[in-house]
Amino acid sequence: MQGGRRVSLLLGNIVDALGGSLEGGLRDTEVVRIAPLESAGPGDISFLSHPRYQQQLAASRAACVIVAPAMREPALARGACIVTDNPYAYFARVTQLWRQQEGRAPVLGVHPSAVVDEGAVVHPSASVGPLCVVERGAHIGAGTVLKSRVTVGADCHVGARCILHAGVVIGADGFGFAPQAGEWIKIEQLGAVRIGDDVEIGANTCIDRGALQDTVIEDGVKLDNLVQIGHNVRIGKHSAMAGCVGVAGSATIGAHCTVGGGAIVLGHLELADNVHISAATVVTRSLTKPGQYTGMFPIDDNVRWEKNAATLKQLHSLRERIKALEQALKAA
Amino acid sequence: MQGGRRVSLLLGNIVDALGGSLEGGLRDTEVVRIAPLESAGPGDISFLSHPRYQQQLAASRAACVIVAPAMREPALARGACIVTDNPYAYFARVTQLWRQQEGRAPVLGVHPSAVVDEGAVVHPSASVGPLCVVERGAHIGAGTVLKSRVTVGADCHVGARCILHAGVVIGADGFGFAPQAGEWIKIEQLGAVRIGDDVEIGANTCIDRGALQDTVIEDGVKLDNLVQIGHNVRIGKHSAMAGCVGVAGSATIGAHCTVGGGAIVLGHLELADNVHISAATVVTRSLTKPGQYTGMFPIDDNVRWEKNAATLKQLHSLRERIKALEQALKAA
Amino acid sequence: MQGGRRVSLLLGNIVDALGGSLEGGLRDTEVVRIAPLESAGPGDISFLSHPRYQQQLAASRAACVIVAPAMREPALARGACIVTDNPYAYFARVTQLWRQQEGRAPVLGVHPSAVVDEGAVVHPSASVGPLCVVERGAHIGAGTVLKSRVTVGADCHVGARCILHAGVVIGADGFGFAPQAGEWIKIEQLGAVRIGDDVEIGANTCIDRGALQDTVIEDGVKLDNLVQIGHNVRIGKHSAMAGCVGVAGSATIGAHCTVGGGAIVLGHLELADNVHISAATVVTRSLTKPGQYTGMFPIDDNVRWEKNAATLKQLHSLRERIKALEQALKAA
Repeated sequence: MQGGRRVSLLLGNIVDALGGSLEGGLRDTEVVRIAPLESAGPGDISFLSHPRYQQQLAASRAACVIVAPAMREPALARGACIVTDNPYAYFARVTQLWRQQEGRAPVLGVHPSAVVDEGAVVHPSASVGPLCVVERGAHIGAGTVLKSRVTVGADCHVGARCILHAGVVIGADGFGFAPQAGEWIKIEQLGAVRIGDDVEIGANTCIDRGALQDTVIEDGVKLDNLVQIGHNVRIGKHSAMAGCVGVAGSATIGAHCTVGGGAIVLGHLELADNVHISAATVVTRSLTKPGQYTGMFPIDDNVRWEKNAATLKQLHSLRERIKALEQALKAA
Repeated sequence: MQGGRRVSLLLGNIVDALGGSLEGGLRDTEVVRIAPLESAGPGDISFLSHPRYQQQLAASRAACVIVAPAMREPALARGACIVTDNPYAYFARVTQLWRQQEGRAPVLGVHPSAVVDEGAVVHPSASVGPLCVVERGAHIGAGTVLKSRVTVGADCHVGARCILHAGVVIGADGFGFAPQAGEWIKIEQLGAVRIGDDVEIGANTCIDRGALQDTVIEDGVKLDNLVQIGHNVRIGKHSAMAGCVGVAGSATIGAHCTVGGGAIVLGHLELADNVHISAATVVTRSLTKPGQYTGMFPIDDNVRWEKNAATLKQLHSLRERIKALEQALKAA
Repeated sequence: MQGGRRVSLLLGNIVDALGGSLEGGLRDTEVVRIAPLESAGPGDISFLSHPRYQQQLAASRAACVIVAPAMREPALARGACIVTDNPYAYFARVTQLWRQQEGRAPVLGVHPSAVVDEGAVVHPSASVGPLCVVERGAHIGAGTVLKSRVTVGADCHVGARCILHAGVVIGADGFGFAPQAGEWIKIEQLGAVRIGDDVEIGANTCIDRGALQDTVIEDGVKLDNLVQIGHNVRIGKHSAMAGCVGVAGSATIGAHCTVGGGAIVLGHLELADNVHISAATVVTRSLTKPGQYTGMFPIDDNVRWEKNAATLKQLHSLRERIKALEQALKAA
């Protein structure tokens, strides 16, 4: 169900706003929904993000399909299409056009239920939602949207055009304690958090303030829900992390990295630019070369897992037995 | 410590309310606490959920024990009992009776500190707790309870008799971005979240709105705390997930499934009905048959783990060495 | 960037407040920042927590370095130092002195936007931050600080000098349901949560109330962000858990334990005192001996991981093949 308010656009409106070439169809054809190829009906616009879905293209009942130049012929054989270099990015921009049409832009300014310290700076074009807390010395940049129940702690800086979803906590204390005589002495966290422009942060995600210096999230970073970023971490431009990721203190992550859901990055490590971590993988050492890295136990039927897991606990000795066999065979 | 207000019930009240047969005891025996068999005292009611705890039954000082028909004889040998087909479910209903007696039902209506959009619909028998946010177009069903600090986003629908615990976020944007020239283009999330009846959602759990269609949680689903449900996920009736589970976008999970704590389900997968995933397991493929599935590295003493983990990184070559040995022996 | 307000201290002030012996420097030397050895400038105080960083000591431009007695000579060769038995704990106390100087102590009392039930008890020296919820029968001890948007549920008890960071939920219902005819019957959670003194709890962390008895967090425990503690868990004194840890119901964890980020402790287990669990490890059995325990799949290049993971699913049969080879060779 898309929105409360009905949206409709003409194909001509779409290409006027976003570019691309409308072929095999009429500018005044109306579309009332964006839909995947297989479920699109005659009032819908759809998209073909990858040639491997070409079969779905042929069968689709969509009014218009967004396609790459290489798919122009099969698309035209079916009906109207918009031809563009990056159909998936074009689709993303269509969703943005849709959202604008809904007339549901966030209300500018500070919601009356929010608690904003008088020593905080909120840009007039920013939106601070219901029941948010913005502490003294904090800075909220132009066009940035804090959804409901977001906390931005003292002296933390959020750049322009960011989106912080409900429940986000920026600038809680990092987890720092010195052991003494079996107890923990608190290390006051004297740094803050600095977040660049165009950063999106998912619901209930936490980014801790630094111990002595700042925790830094660079421009264009995207974090999903329930992500934990420890103190003094640095995340490079346009990196993205899926839900439930944990990054321990003082890790430095490069630009254009991706981290899959539930992965853990241990502290004080460095990840180069363009490193990609698979879901649920534990990063225990620095990764200096771009590439895809994985470490997860393969799922199996429980009975087979039990057998293999039990054997795994003897793996080192199995290796010794193989060595012994090799030597025995050589000697024979 | 149970409640602030002292509760007491007569055994007769309990069987009148919940059925079952009271044997070997008096209707006017008073019980003032529900307790496990081993710690129950003479003013307590207890239960025997499984025959393997029969020894604890014999030793228990409880005023009355809830037992299955098969345990009737040993229970009577000890004292009063309530005989019922499913003692654990009966115990659950006794806790509900207890809660009612405490006179602490959630206050109906909307707490004055909550922020409820005038375009939202809250059923008169629902309870919206302190500092909740209910956005325009949202719907809160009959008898549903939102504890404190819950967000229900625009156009999201919560059915009847649901419980949403503190900090829950329903309807934050799904994590959707299209890559273009090294940056991420936001895909506006135009769907909503639809939650059925009798659903319980744990503290700080997040359920994202769908990209084009809705994210759907069917009737009777139970989610623990800090669970992440991605956009366009569907969870079938009466499935349950323990704490810290992450389900990535567009996964479809059947009815009567269970997912153990910390497990991760990757996106676009299908799990059949009655699939059970062990804790901390990563589901990387669709599971079409009911059953228990597991994938976790077995815990060990750190020194042994290090040896086995190091060998694991050579496992494929070990297999080759075994093959070579087999061939050599065959040739010999 | 440290704080909004500039802090400066004389070395003489520091040793007067915290002890230790100032050597090779002047009491009236002013320091304006605390910094790591490698980035410290001539206005900064730094510390040497471990002899392995001795090389950084020699090169550091810090005005003064906190060192252990064994490092006194090399430190003096460089310039001013404060000699103390535990330099890291001393550094922690310097950060506390810094925080005090900033004049940013939490405001005592209850913030006007907080919702505190009239049946709750908040000590006059406690601080309840903006948009917190404290339910009936809850108790907040002396000197305890609730940051913004914390929920403390009915009848839960928080001791003295605790810090609960933003978004914390104490006393949501534990995850308890009895299966009956394919549905789940709710087990009302009649216990509460009892938290000792000097406990720190990270942002968006959840501690569930007990089913029949209380969930107990003993004195001095430190929990990081996004940690999930199930019902009826007990955590012993001065244990610490990093971010994203999940502890399932009725687990009992000893004193002075540590649990690394993302680890999962299954329910009804017991961990002895001084047990240390590595990050992302799944604790599937009780651990009765102190020590370090680990279970995680080692990260690798994705291609190598795929080969090794595929072989892992045949590991049990590989063991059988090794056995067969051994027997064949013996027979030969």
